[in-house]
Amino acid sequence: MKKIEHIGIAVKSLETSNTLFSKLFGKPHYKIEDVVSEGVKTSFFQVGENKIELLEATNPNSPIAKFIEKKGEGIHHIAFDVADIQLEIARLKEEGFVVLNTEPKKGADNKLVAFLHPKSTNGVLIELCQEIIE
Amino acid sequence: MKKIEHIGIAVKSLETSNTLFSKLFGKPHYKIEDVVSEGVKTSFFQVGENKIELLEATNPNSPIAKFIEKKGEGIHHIAFDVADIQLEIARLKEEGFVVLNTEPKKGADNKLVAFLHPKSTNGVLIELCQEIIE
Repeated sequence: MKKIEHIGIAVKSLETSNTLFSKLFGKPHYKIEDVVSEGVKTSFFQVGENKIELLEATNPNSPIAKFIEKKGEGIHHIAFDVADIQLEIARLKEEGFVVLNTEPKKGADNKLVAFLHPKSTNGVLIELCQEIIE
Repeated sequence: MKKIEHIGIAVKSLETSNTLFSKLFGKPHYKIEDVVSEGVKTSFFQVGENKIELLEATNPNSPIAKFIEKKGEGIHHIAFDVADIQLEIARLKEEGFVVLNTEPKKGADNKLVAFLHPKSTNGVLIELCQEIIE
Protein backbone atom coordinates (compact mmCIF):
# COMPACT_ATOMS: atom_id res chain seq x y z
CA MET A 1 0.00 0.00 0.00
CA LYS A 2 1.76 3.14 -1.20
CA LYS A 3 -0.81 5.75 -0.19
CA ILE A 4 -4.50 6.60 0.00
CA GLU A 5 -5.39 7.22 -3.63
CA HIS A 6 -8.90 8.52 -3.01
CA ILE A 7 -11.95 8.42 -0.76
CA GLY A 8 -15.22 7.57 -2.53
CA ILE A 9 -18.39 9.32 -1.34
CA ALA A 10 -21.87 8.19 -2.45
CA VAL A 11 -24.13 11.13 -3.36
CA LYS A 12 -27.65 11.45 -4.69
CA SER A 13 -26.94 14.30 -7.08
CA LEU A 14 -23.48 14.92 -8.50
CA GLU A 15 -24.53 18.43 -9.52
CA THR A 16 -25.67 19.44 -6.01
CA SER A 17 -22.71 17.76 -4.33
CA ASN A 18 -20.16 19.27 -6.70
CA THR A 19 -21.36 22.69 -5.54
CA LEU A 20 -21.25 21.60 -1.88
CA PHE A 21 -17.73 20.14 -2.05
CA SER A 22 -16.46 23.13 -4.05
CA LYS A 23 -17.50 25.30 -1.12
CA LEU A 24 -15.90 22.88 1.35
CA PHE A 25 -12.54 22.74 -0.43
CA GLY A 26 -12.61 26.28 -1.81
CA LYS A 27 -12.02 24.98 -5.35
CA PRO A 28 -13.99 23.14 -8.06
CA HIS A 29 -13.80 19.47 -9.15
CA TYR A 30 -11.19 18.92 -11.88
CA LYS A 31 -12.97 16.24 -13.87
CA ILE A 32 -16.17 14.26 -14.43
CA GLU A 33 -16.11 10.65 -15.60
CA ASP A 34 -18.78 8.08 -16.46
CA VAL A 35 -17.99 4.49 -15.47
CA VAL A 36 -20.67 2.69 -17.47
CA SER A 37 -19.69 -0.81 -16.24
CA GLU A 38 -20.34 0.26 -12.61
CA GLY A 39 -23.41 2.35 -13.32
CA VAL A 40 -21.86 5.49 -11.87
CA LYS A 41 -21.01 9.03 -12.81
CA THR A 42 -18.07 10.39 -10.82
CA SER A 43 -16.36 13.69 -10.14
CA PHE A 44 -12.91 14.27 -8.65
CA PHE A 45 -11.45 16.89 -6.30
CA GLN A 46 -7.74 17.09 -5.46
CA VAL A 47 -6.79 17.61 -1.78
CA GLY A 48 -3.06 17.38 -1.04
CA GLU A 49 -1.80 14.15 -2.60
CA ASN A 50 -5.25 12.52 -2.38
CA LYS A 51 -8.48 12.72 -4.35
CA ILE A 52 -12.09 12.83 -3.25
CA GLU A 53 -14.33 10.95 -5.69
CA LEU A 54 -18.05 11.70 -5.62
CA LEU A 55 -20.21 8.88 -7.00
CA GLU A 56 -23.75 9.20 -8.33
CA ALA A 57 -25.69 6.12 -9.51
CA THR A 58 -26.80 6.21 -13.14
CA ASN A 59 -29.18 3.25 -12.80
CA PRO A 60 -31.11 1.55 -9.97
CA ASN A 61 -28.88 -1.57 -10.06
CA SER A 62 -25.69 0.40 -9.47
CA PRO A 63 -23.87 -0.52 -6.23
CA ILE A 64 -24.11 3.18 -5.33
CA ALA A 65 -27.92 3.20 -5.69
CA LYS A 66 -28.12 0.18 -3.37
CA PHE A 67 -25.69 1.73 -0.87
CA ILE A 68 -27.71 4.97 -0.67
CA GLU A 69 -30.97 3.05 -0.35
CA LYS A 70 -29.58 1.11 2.63
CA LYS A 71 -27.34 3.66 4.38
CA GLY A 72 -28.01 7.07 2.85
CA GLU A 73 -25.38 9.38 1.39
CA GLY A 74 -21.91 9.13 2.90
CA ILE A 75 -18.42 7.65 2.66
CA HIS A 76 -18.55 4.58 0.43
CA HIS A 77 -14.94 3.34 0.20
CA ILE A 78 -11.26 4.08 0.70
CA ALA A 79 -8.95 3.34 -2.23
CA PHE A 80 -5.27 2.55 -1.72
CA ASP A 81 -2.68 2.92 -4.44
CA VAL A 82 -0.63 -0.27 -4.86
CA ALA A 83 2.45 -0.93 -6.98
CA ASP A 84 1.36 -4.38 -8.21
CA ILE A 85 -2.32 -5.20 -7.76
CA GLN A 86 -1.93 -8.93 -8.58
CA LEU A 87 0.79 -9.35 -5.94
CA GLU A 88 -1.25 -7.34 -3.42
CA ILE A 89 -4.38 -9.46 -4.03
CA ALA A 90 -2.31 -12.62 -3.48
CA ARG A 91 -0.70 -11.20 -0.31
CA LEU A 92 -4.02 -10.08 1.20
CA LYS A 93 -5.76 -13.40 0.43
CA GLU A 94 -2.89 -15.15 2.17
CA GLU A 95 -3.47 -12.86 5.18
CA GLY A 96 -7.13 -13.91 5.35
CA PHE A 97 -8.86 -10.95 3.65
CA VAL A 98 -11.84 -11.61 1.38
CA VAL A 99 -11.01 -10.21 -2.07
CA LEU A 100 -14.14 -9.63 -4.15
CA ASN A 101 -12.35 -9.61 -7.53
CA THR A 102 -9.84 -12.36 -8.15
CA GLU A 103 -9.00 -10.60 -11.39
CA PRO A 104 -8.67 -6.81 -11.20
CA LYS A 105 -11.11 -4.89 -13.40
CA LYS A 106 -11.01 -1.52 -15.17
CA GLY A 107 -12.27 1.25 -12.86
CA ALA A 108 -12.54 5.03 -13.06
CA ASP A 109 -9.52 7.29 -13.58
CA ASN A 110 -7.50 4.85 -15.72
CA LYS A 111 -7.01 2.29 -12.94
CA LEU A 112 -7.11 -1.45 -12.45
CA VAL A 113 -9.15 -2.04 -9.31
CA ALA A 114 -10.16 -4.80 -6.89
CA PHE A 115 -12.26 -4.63 -3.71
CA LEU A 116 -11.94 -6.24 -0.28
CA HIS A 117 -15.18 -7.35 1.38
CA PRO A 118 -16.04 -5.07 4.35
CA LYS A 119 -16.78 -8.11 6.53
CA SER A 120 -13.03 -8.85 6.55
CA THR A 121 -11.96 -5.22 7.10
CA ASN A 122 -13.93 -3.85 10.09
CA GLY A 123 -16.85 -2.74 7.96
CA VAL A 124 -14.67 -0.65 5.62
CA LEU A 125 -15.03 -1.22 1.86
CA ILE A 126 -11.45 -1.09 0.59
CA GLU A 127 -10.42 -0.65 -3.03
CA LEU A 128 -6.97 -1.50 -4.28
CA CYS A 129 -5.97 0.40 -7.38
CA GLN A 130 -3.05 0.46 -9.76
CA GLU A 131 -2.54 3.03 -12.51
CA ILE A 132 -2.75 1.54 -16.01
CA ILE A 133 0.43 2.37 -17.92
CA GLU A 134 -0.12 2.01 -21.67
CA MET B 1 -7.96 22.64 3.49
CA LYS B 2 -4.33 21.65 3.05
CA LYS B 3 -4.71 17.86 2.90
CA ILE B 4 -6.47 14.85 4.37
CA GLU B 5 -4.85 14.52 7.79
CA HIS B 6 -6.42 11.19 8.70
CA ILE B 7 -9.41 8.89 8.27
CA GLY B 8 -11.05 7.77 11.52
CA ILE B 9 -12.42 4.22 11.71
CA ALA B 10 -14.68 3.06 14.57
CA VAL B 11 -13.71 -0.40 15.87
CA LYS B 12 -14.98 -2.64 18.66
CA SER B 13 -11.57 -3.84 19.80
CA LEU B 14 -8.41 -1.83 19.22
CA GLU B 15 -6.31 -4.92 19.91
CA THR B 16 -8.05 -7.08 17.28
CA SER B 17 -8.16 -4.27 14.74
CA ASN B 18 -4.51 -3.30 15.23
CA THR B 19 -3.63 -6.83 14.15
CA LEU B 20 -6.02 -6.66 11.19
CA PHE B 21 -4.78 -3.31 9.90
CA SER B 22 -1.13 -4.32 10.43
CA LYS B 23 -1.80 -7.18 8.00
CA LEU B 24 -3.57 -4.83 5.59
CA PHE B 25 -0.79 -2.23 5.53
CA GLY B 26 2.09 -4.66 6.04
CA LYS B 27 3.34 -2.62 9.02
CA PRO B 28 2.29 -1.99 12.64
CA HIS B 29 0.60 1.07 14.19
CA TYR B 30 3.12 3.66 15.37
CA LYS B 31 1.30 4.93 18.45
CA ILE B 32 -1.59 4.46 20.85
CA GLU B 33 -3.30 7.44 22.52
CA ASP B 34 -6.11 7.80 25.06
CA VAL B 35 -8.41 10.78 24.52
CA VAL B 36 -10.21 10.82 27.85
CA SER B 37 -12.43 13.81 27.01
CA GLU B 38 -13.90 11.91 24.02
CA GLY B 39 -14.07 8.52 25.73
CA VAL B 40 -11.83 6.89 23.13
CA LYS B 41 -8.60 4.99 22.83
CA THR B 42 -6.93 5.47 19.45
CA SER B 43 -4.13 3.95 17.41
CA PHE B 44 -2.42 5.43 14.35
CA PHE B 45 -1.03 3.95 11.12
CA GLN B 46 0.93 6.02 8.58
CA VAL B 47 0.04 5.51 4.89
CA GLY B 48 1.78 7.91 2.50
CA GLU B 49 1.22 11.44 3.82
CA ASN B 50 -1.98 10.41 5.63
CA LYS B 51 -2.84 8.58 8.84
CA ILE B 52 -5.47 5.99 9.61
CA GLU B 53 -6.84 6.44 13.14
CA LEU B 54 -8.62 3.48 14.74
CA LEU B 55 -11.05 4.49 17.50
CA GLU B 56 -12.32 2.24 20.30
CA ALA B 57 -14.86 3.52 22.83
CA THR B 58 -13.71 3.45 26.46
CA ASN B 59 -17.18 4.07 27.90
CA PRO B 60 -20.79 3.56 26.73
CA ASN B 61 -21.41 7.32 26.33
CA SER B 62 -18.55 7.78 23.93
CA PRO B 63 -19.60 9.01 20.46
CA ILE B 64 -17.82 5.91 19.08
CA ALA B 65 -19.92 3.53 21.23
CA LYS B 66 -23.07 5.22 19.93
CA PHE B 67 -21.85 5.13 16.33
CA ILE B 68 -21.08 1.39 16.50
CA GLU B 69 -24.43 0.70 18.19
CA LYS B 70 -26.26 2.45 15.32
CA LYS B 71 -24.14 1.63 12.28
CA GLY B 72 -21.62 -1.04 13.25
CA GLU B 73 -17.88 -0.80 12.76
CA GLY B 74 -16.70 1.31 9.84
CA ILE B 75 -15.44 4.68 8.65
CA HIS B 76 -16.37 7.33 11.20
CA HIS B 77 -14.91 10.59 9.89
CA ILE B 78 -12.46 12.30 7.54
CA ALA B 79 -10.12 14.87 9.06
CA PHE B 80 -8.67 17.71 7.01
CA ASP B 81 -5.57 19.61 8.00
CA VAL B 82 -6.18 23.37 7.97
CA ALA B 83 -3.73 26.24 8.40
CA ASP B 84 -5.98 28.36 10.65
CA ILE B 85 -8.93 26.54 12.21
CA GLN B 86 -10.67 29.72 13.43
CA LEU B 87 -10.59 31.25 9.94
CA GLU B 88 -11.75 27.97 8.40
CA ILE B 89 -14.68 27.68 10.84
CA ALA B 90 -15.72 31.23 9.98
CA ARG B 91 -15.39 30.61 6.21
CA LEU B 92 -17.39 27.36 6.32
CA LYS B 93 -20.18 28.87 8.45
CA GLU B 94 -20.43 31.68 5.92
CA GLU B 95 -20.77 29.02 3.18
CA GLY B 96 -23.72 27.43 5.04
CA PHE B 97 -22.03 24.45 6.74
CA VAL B 98 -23.13 23.50 10.26
CA VAL B 99 -20.09 23.65 12.53
CA LEU B 100 -20.57 21.60 15.72
CA ASN B 101 -17.86 23.37 17.72
CA THR B 102 -17.80 27.14 17.55
CA GLU B 103 -14.62 26.99 19.59
CA PRO B 104 -12.08 24.35 18.53
CA LYS B 105 -11.25 21.79 21.22
CA LYS B 106 -8.19 19.67 22.04
CA GLY B 107 -8.31 16.36 20.15
CA ALA B 108 -5.95 13.41 19.72
CA ASP B 109 -2.44 13.75 18.27
CA ASN B 110 -1.77 17.28 19.57
CA LYS B 111 -4.45 18.95 17.46
CA LEU B 112 -7.13 21.59 17.80
CA VAL B 113 -10.25 20.13 16.23
CA ALA B 114 -13.79 21.08 15.19
CA PHE B 115 -16.48 19.00 13.46
CA LEU B 116 -18.97 19.75 10.69
CA HIS B 117 -22.42 18.18 11.04
CA PRO B 118 -22.92 15.36 8.49
CA LYS B 119 -26.35 16.74 7.59
CA SER B 120 -24.62 19.68 5.89
CA THR B 121 -21.92 17.54 4.20
CA ASN B 122 -23.66 14.67 2.33
CA GLY B 123 -23.67 12.39 5.36
CA VAL B 124 -19.90 12.69 5.90
CA LEU B 125 -18.67 13.62 9.39
CA ILE B 126 -15.82 16.04 8.72
CA GLU B 127 -13.18 17.07 11.24
CA LEU B 128 -11.04 20.15 10.78
CA CYS B 129 -7.72 19.97 12.58
CA GLN B 130 -4.79 22.23 13.18
CA GLU B 131 -1.52 21.19 14.78
CA ILE B 132 -0.91 22.84 18.17
CA ILE B 133 2.46 24.62 18.10
CA GLU B 134 3.72 25.25 21.62
